[in-house]
Amino acid sequence: MIVARTLAALRDARRDARGPVGLVPTMGYLHQGHLSLVHAAKAECESVYASIFVNPTQFGPHEDFAKYPRDEARDLEMLESAGVSLVFIPSVEEMYPAGDATRISVDALTGVLEGARRPGHFVGVATVVAKLLNAVQPDRSYFGQKDAQQLAVIRRMVRDLLLPIEVVGCPIIRDDDGLACSSRNVYLAPEQRQAALSLSRGLRAAEHAFAAGLRDAEALRTIVRTQILAEPLAAIDYVSLADADSLAELEGSVQGPALLSLVVGFGPTHLLDNVTLVP
Amino acid sequence: MIVARTLAALRDARRDARGPVGLVPTMGYLHQGHLSLVHAAKAECESVYASIFVNPTQFGPHEDFAKYPRDEARDLEMLESAGVSLVFIPSVEEMYPAGDATRISVDALTGVLEGARRPGHFVGVATVVAKLLNAVQPDRSYFGQKDAQQLAVIRRMVRDLLLPIEVVGCPIIRDDDGLACSSRNVYLAPEQRQAALSLSRGLRAAEHAFAAGLRDAEALRTIVRTQILAEPLAAIDYVSLADADSLAELEGSVQGPALLSLVVGFGPTHLLDNVTLVP
Repeated sequence: MIVARTLAALRDARRDARGPVGLVPTMGYLHQGHLSLVHAAKAECESVYASIFVNPTQFGPHEDFAKYPRDEARDLEMLESAGVSLVFIPSVEEMYPAGDATRISVDALTGVLEGARRPGHFVGVATVVAKLLNAVQPDRSYFGQKDAQQLAVIRRMVRDLLLPIEVVGCPIIRDDDGLACSSRNVYLAPEQRQAALSLSRGLRAAEHAFAAGLRDAEALRTIVRTQILAEPLAAIDYVSLADADSLAELEGSVQGPALLSLVVGFGPTHLLDNVTLVP
Repeated sequence: MIVARTLAALRDARRDARGPVGLVPTMGYLHQGHLSLVHAAKAECESVYASIFVNPTQFGPHEDFAKYPRDEARDLEMLESAGVSLVFIPSVEEMYPAGDATRISVDALTGVLEGARRPGHFVGVATVVAKLLNAVQPDRSYFGQKDAQQLAVIRRMVRDLLLPIEVVGCPIIRDDDGLACSSRNVYLAPEQRQAALSLSRGLRAAEHAFAAGLRDAEALRTIVRTQILAEPLAAIDYVSLADADSLAELEGSVQGPALLSLVVGFGPTHLLDNVTLVP
């Protein structure tokens, strides 16, 4: 496995890669969710590249950029075992050269949900993903459905900018107790983690009600909220049921594919989870 | 010469192109300035592609998008004679698919000069150039120095987004009387065109004074302004002397490469010209 820490090293290696090339962009501190992306890429691509870059521009001034969990040695072992052929680990200076001034926005999708709560977050995400895609030039790139709005933003950006890259969304991976895998789960105290199981429990309850025929958007959101409100350690940021394509919040009866998503705080830690409901 | 009107047709042809590929993006209604870009590309690239696309997103609501001059048949003849191997002529729908929401900004360079006068213009330029570069995937792309701020914005964007493309800036081409070639020159009445010669005359006068040792920024701008103010048909939008890299306006003594640029209106027609002064 090649470890490329500069663009020059990446490009040298990329020139000789057997295609197609699949890219799994990550912020490191890998878990089973990331590995599932690597496995999906391995199944479809001759060469699988991963990147590890904790991107400063997608963190707000009061967010956890400085203390975002990092463990490069462990990450490298996991990626090598999973059969990754190259890991790109650039410095901030390599990704944001002096005088860097270019930013990418996908405004129609980012005024709601996480985008409303974290101003500038998705400009940072779209910009760094474009940089990584341009640097690596993969045929396909793999992202988790857990960050559903991020996936929607990246899909739209890649389509709009006419990038010849297939964006592949992969299912949420959960621990045995149902908690969606996240690098930030490490922040949770045991009693918070226990309370956090209400997220997947609420989503599952709504999914069952939907399968049984319930279509009213507010009633579906209420099922989720009720489960979470039963946990005193949980503070709901939002529970949303939105059009899966436009991310516009739904009222009345659900007619097409809908994203049921939530963000819930446990102390300073905000966890995401979601499920897609298809009538 | 292949004429590709869809992305699919472009990509089919691009797959078989002999490299390196040079791209000359244009808005059509070609003149000697455009042809000089084609010649520069021919000298360096195995295959030369051109694009013709009048980009709606870089025109303001009161600008001349609808009546921007167009003559596709003549453009195609000129490009074929010049040895271009493919012309990409997409529709607006091909470049901006339904739901298009992605925009690229290079704010540090676009709050001044043309950017200050035309809000949103350079977001439109950066976005469409990124789309064209992603669609064509050239090794090099050629732009005229006449649109100096545009060239600076594109250079910065390509660098910041880590695009593996060389941006080549080419010298301004002038008619025999000194007027910089522009598709918009066709709008000029004969007496306006006569008055417009004051632009290059003013720039040349300042260039001579600079060569003779004059370094004071305001004195250099005044030389240009004086020439243009002598023409009653000319209305100065601005005369600027700015750092060639940051585009920050200069005061006092010029120490490094500086862009002496201007925009002057003749009725509704605004003409650009510039020269770079290197101490």
